[in-house]
Amino acid sequence: MDTKERIIIESLKLFMRFGIRSITMDTIAESLGISKRTVYELFKNKDELLESCIVSRMIEEEKNNAEIMKNSANIIEAFLTHIKRSINLMSSISPMFFHDARKYHPEVFRCKGKEREEKDYDMIVEYINTGKQEGFIRQEINVDIIAKLMKEQFKIIGNDELFPPDHYSKSEIFENIAINFIRGIATDEGLKIINKFEF
Amino acid sequence: MDTKERIIIESLKLFMRFGIRSITMDTIAESLGISKRTVYELFKNKDELLESCIVSRMIEEEKNNAEIMKNSANIIEAFLTHIKRSINLMSSISPMFFHDARKYHPEVFRCKGKEREEKDYDMIVEYINTGKQEGFIRQEINVDIIAKLMKEQFKIIGNDELFPPDHYSKSEIFENIAINFIRGIATDEGLKIINKFEF
Repeated sequence: MDTKERIIIESLKLFMRFGIRSITMDTIAESLGISKRTVYELFKNKDELLESCIVSRMIEEEKNNAEIMKNSANIIEAFLTHIKRSINLMSSISPMFFHDARKYHPEVFRCKGKEREEKDYDMIVEYINTGKQEGFIRQEINVDIIAKLMKEQFKIIGNDELFPPDHYSKSEIFENIAINFIRGIATDEGLKIINKFEF
Repeated sequence: MDTKERIIIESLKLFMRFGIRSITMDTIAESLGISKRTVYELFKNKDELLESCIVSRMIEEEKNNAEIMKNSANIIEAFLTHIKRSINLMSSISPMFFHDARKYHPEVFRCKGKEREEKDYDMIVEYINTGKQEGFIRQEINVDIIAKLMKEQFKIIGNDELFPPDHYSKSEIFENIAINFIRGIATDEGLKIINKFEF
């Protein structure tokens, strides 16, 4: 692994755990036993570093999704495994991460958020179409409407006014959204698989 | 029925059918065979008339809901009857109504919209709590989170950027939201009732 990758992995870990603001370029350099200058040579500023962290995380997630799809017996199992992993991931991210990203890096947050939403939309469409073919998702649902609604609900998770972080955990909101979503679109056969799945 | 009520009922009917902008105070007076002066004596302007129409509609809906609750065997049946009626109502409202309300009467739209959302939230909480007691809605769902999410989804119906009215009908969006919602929160027993219900 080269220095750039090491910096990204370490920064992401620290950002997710403690938020972005409290982690300086100094902290990151120190934590890796490298000089601050090396960090700045590879990343102009924190915006650039954060963007690289998010991009790296998105690539990681795409790999994970492909792997889940490959290893699941059907789309319902794949979707539930995906939900389970996301819940675990979200529980491990400090609310400060989202707070700081929105407040101190709004452009990166907005831009990467938009990319993320588009990927979410495409992924949901793929899941639903496969599920319809397999007979586990109801034929009568409108894929486009449902995928758009789901994308909007994912955005709602980040709405701190509606769900103040000191009262609601993002993982709990996500869990309620995702489980209701999959149950809502499933056929009776699909529901049998959902009821057997262990969270 | 007094003149004020007659004006409200006639205006609401015309607004819902043709939008708000194209219906002048003159049109309303003419349609009822009364003078324009009478209309203006009772309603200072169109904002005030529109507000009265919306309030009247909200009172009507509350009566309908109470009646549905009374006449349904259980909460799932009540919810589905409610969905069915709302789909029919929405199909009968011109997209111009929402367009004009938002564009030419933003304050009334915003203010009454907010009231409506709060009522929606309370209604959903009541439905879910009753359904949990009856055993038709899953115990593990978080009522507050789900009711908030549902309220947000109802708001999405009015998002013309996400769902341009020339491509999506509000009733179709509502149907997809509402059916998935009730299926998502239902227990297996609840789903049996849903599967039997005739739309």
